[in-house]
Amino acid sequence: MSLPEWLNGDDKDGDVPFSAAEILERCDILATHSSRVGAIERSYLTAEHARTNWTVGEWMAQAGLEPWQDAAGNQRGTLAGPRDDSPVLLLGSHLDTVPGAGRYDGILGTLMAIAVVGRLEAKGVRLPFGIEVLGFADEEGTRFGRTLLGSCAVAGAWQDSWWELRDAQGISLRTAFEAFGLDPARIEEAALPRERVLGYLEAHIEQGPLLEDADRALGVVTGIMGARRFDLTMVGEAGHAGGMPYGRRRDALLGASEVVTVIETLARDHGAIGTVGRMQAYPGAANVIPGRAEFSLDLRAETDELRDRVWDLIQEQAAKVAAARNLDFQAVERHDAEATVVGERLAEAIRAGIAATGDTAPLELLSKAGHDAMAIASLTDYAMLFIRCGGGISHHKDESVIEADVALALDAFEAAVLDLARTF
Amino acid sequence: MSLPEWLNGDDKDGDVPFSAAEILERCDILATHSSRVGAIERSYLTAEHARTNWTVGEWMAQAGLEPWQDAAGNQRGTLAGPRDDSPVLLLGSHLDTVPGAGRYDGILGTLMAIAVVGRLEAKGVRLPFGIEVLGFADEEGTRFGRTLLGSCAVAGAWQDSWWELRDAQGISLRTAFEAFGLDPARIEEAALPRERVLGYLEAHIEQGPLLEDADRALGVVTGIMGARRFDLTMVGEAGHAGGMPYGRRRDALLGASEVVTVIETLARDHGAIGTVGRMQAYPGAANVIPGRAEFSLDLRAETDELRDRVWDLIQEQAAKVAAARNLDFQAVERHDAEATVVGERLAEAIRAGIAATGDTAPLELLSKAGHDAMAIASLTDYAMLFIRCGGGISHHKDESVIEADVALALDAFEAAVLDLARTF
Repeated sequence: MSLPEWLNGDDKDGDVPFSAAEILERCDILATHSSRVGAIERSYLTAEHARTNWTVGEWMAQAGLEPWQDAAGNQRGTLAGPRDDSPVLLLGSHLDTVPGAGRYDGILGTLMAIAVVGRLEAKGVRLPFGIEVLGFADEEGTRFGRTLLGSCAVAGAWQDSWWELRDAQGISLRTAFEAFGLDPARIEEAALPRERVLGYLEAHIEQGPLLEDADRALGVVTGIMGARRFDLTMVGEAGHAGGMPYGRRRDALLGASEVVTVIETLARDHGAIGTVGRMQAYPGAANVIPGRAEFSLDLRAETDELRDRVWDLIQEQAAKVAAARNLDFQAVERHDAEATVVGERLAEAIRAGIAATGDTAPLELLSKAGHDAMAIASLTDYAMLFIRCGGGISHHKDESVIEADVALALDAFEAAVLDLARTF
Repeated sequence: MSLPEWLNGDDKDGDVPFSAAEILERCDILATHSSRVGAIERSYLTAEHARTNWTVGEWMAQAGLEPWQDAAGNQRGTLAGPRDDSPVLLLGSHLDTVPGAGRYDGILGTLMAIAVVGRLEAKGVRLPFGIEVLGFADEEGTRFGRTLLGSCAVAGAWQDSWWELRDAQGISLRTAFEAFGLDPARIEEAALPRERVLGYLEAHIEQGPLLEDADRALGVVTGIMGARRFDLTMVGEAGHAGGMPYGRRRDALLGASEVVTVIETLARDHGAIGTVGRMQAYPGAANVIPGRAEFSLDLRAETDELRDRVWDLIQEQAAKVAAARNLDFQAVERHDAEATVVGERLAEAIRAGIAATGDTAPLELLSKAGHDAMAIASLTDYAMLFIRCGGGISHHKDESVIEADVALALDAFEAAVLDLARTF
């Protein structure tokens, strides 16, 4: 089928197919697939998700991949190997976003994976394995509060309890699946058979400032921090903002506010990272003492042990804050991802790829951000290539990359695939 | 017209017309006029507001008042005086609620005013002045963030700038007026001519614990604390909850949380009352550092001078918190009500009324809560009767009163009106 002009790499701007310039142009195009005007938000099983899959599927086809949408809504593209039972190398990242997102987190890695296949196909390279490009449908967990849904489906790690997860409108994941045209009963068809998979490579912006600080374009990931996420609640009692004396108040927001600062202090003191991203006071009127405050905690550390120790300390302190103010403190765990380390052979291929671009001793980085690779780690080995981003800014509209860095990253990612092919 | 059975005071429960029992039953009925199931929320210019006006209008008619809805949506009832130009005594309170409200705040005072007229009419008392009962349509400011809209219209203090106030859905006050069937161009018709008004008496639950602590049913108000309300904002920068190191974060929620505790400390230290009732972090995802936090401040004190001094200190401290975290702190004033004192002759009538129930030295109370009387104070003198409420709880579903207290309050309120009549 012929592509519309704006979707075609060989467009009026004269971008070279599968080039960094083309990829950045496509990041701009996907940025328009948003539920909001003037901001990027693309969450799981929405109209924007469907539109994105369609667009990315066209680009996959253009690169020589057979595009298809799997039973979890992931957009996938298959390049057959030399034999029907050839092992498959997985390349990819995610296509969903946080609210108010930038245009490169996840998207850049997915489009790079497609471009690398396009470049190899254009050169007539015959690989000894098949390739599957994965555009994961839900890494951020924006809609249902549970991250990595797309990659968990591919890893065969889907859990039945997730069907009853609900979004902010009260729509269950099951209902959203059906409304999107997916059959929950077929979710297992998204899973890859372990024995056919060679490994997983993912390119991603760093989402931190270390590459920029070190004046490097690319880095090799050594592992991914484990993260736990909690829904926290302080329960007090609503009351009149004027009439109720301080001594009798049970102000839930005051307790929650103290816990927010306690989290920062404990996490910093112990070298962990704690973030409260959500906070809302109820009933939420200017003249009513909050009877309830709901907030989130995202907690990460280099080791799961450290992270869990800090969580224990946070709970202890929060309980003290609550007791002092006659409040109830409640915590419900929403997400728990173990720390993972990369597969050595795959990381070696990433290093070889970066070396091919001239940096023979690339910066080694522990990812503090979570990635689909964490979920895929339960299926197969993984490795990751990090790309410098401006000011370390991510999960923000000002996310940025340099075209020259993306060009280097494309060369390195292609060289990494070829390095694996050479020793296969 | 004949009333439906459930609206009729002479109902199957055998309540005496204009009795405390009937009033409490009517508070229960109005509690069902809510936009929420299982909670009371009745805000300005909604279907619930219209339904409440209709119901209360029926009760007004039953008490001998001529019911009408004014140009601001207030439900009013007129009892003519002996002459066409007789001065008018105003009695009333408000019919709207906060979100998750109790059933007595405002409602009880409005229904008591109606019942007092009903009792005087039933006894054939000929007053030397007319009476107007006012059921104010918006005291709480729940929908448009600006309190006392109903009573400001009656006081002739409506401001043109309010037409562009917007609710959470972005609907302007002007549009809401029109949708409710009101004509914004006629707002001035709600105002009372100053020269015809004798004064304003309001009965209200205390919304604090002082009467209960003193084992008194009723109290006389000496004045109402001035209140100022602000929309506060901390602006930082959103970022990835994992990738962005602490040293580079500009976490708006951390700044806002510190300010919440600063407000409590400064207000308590200086004997003022500061309440943060609203708080929300944006973009509001568990894995995104908040780039913006929006919260409210309601600040009250015995004198306007003290209140303003505490606000200066809060601003100073908040600016320091913001500077230390590289955030911007912004404050927009939404509401400013001056402290007011009661009219001595009217307060004397309230004291005489309470004395008639047996308490000859009633507790004198400064109201920390705002009331319609604050707005009416710009039109005429006012006085208030406070009624004990359970545990000082208000703005909460557990708001409660004792029937015996309401019976005493009815006697006192009626006696206060008669005291004014005697010396007219």
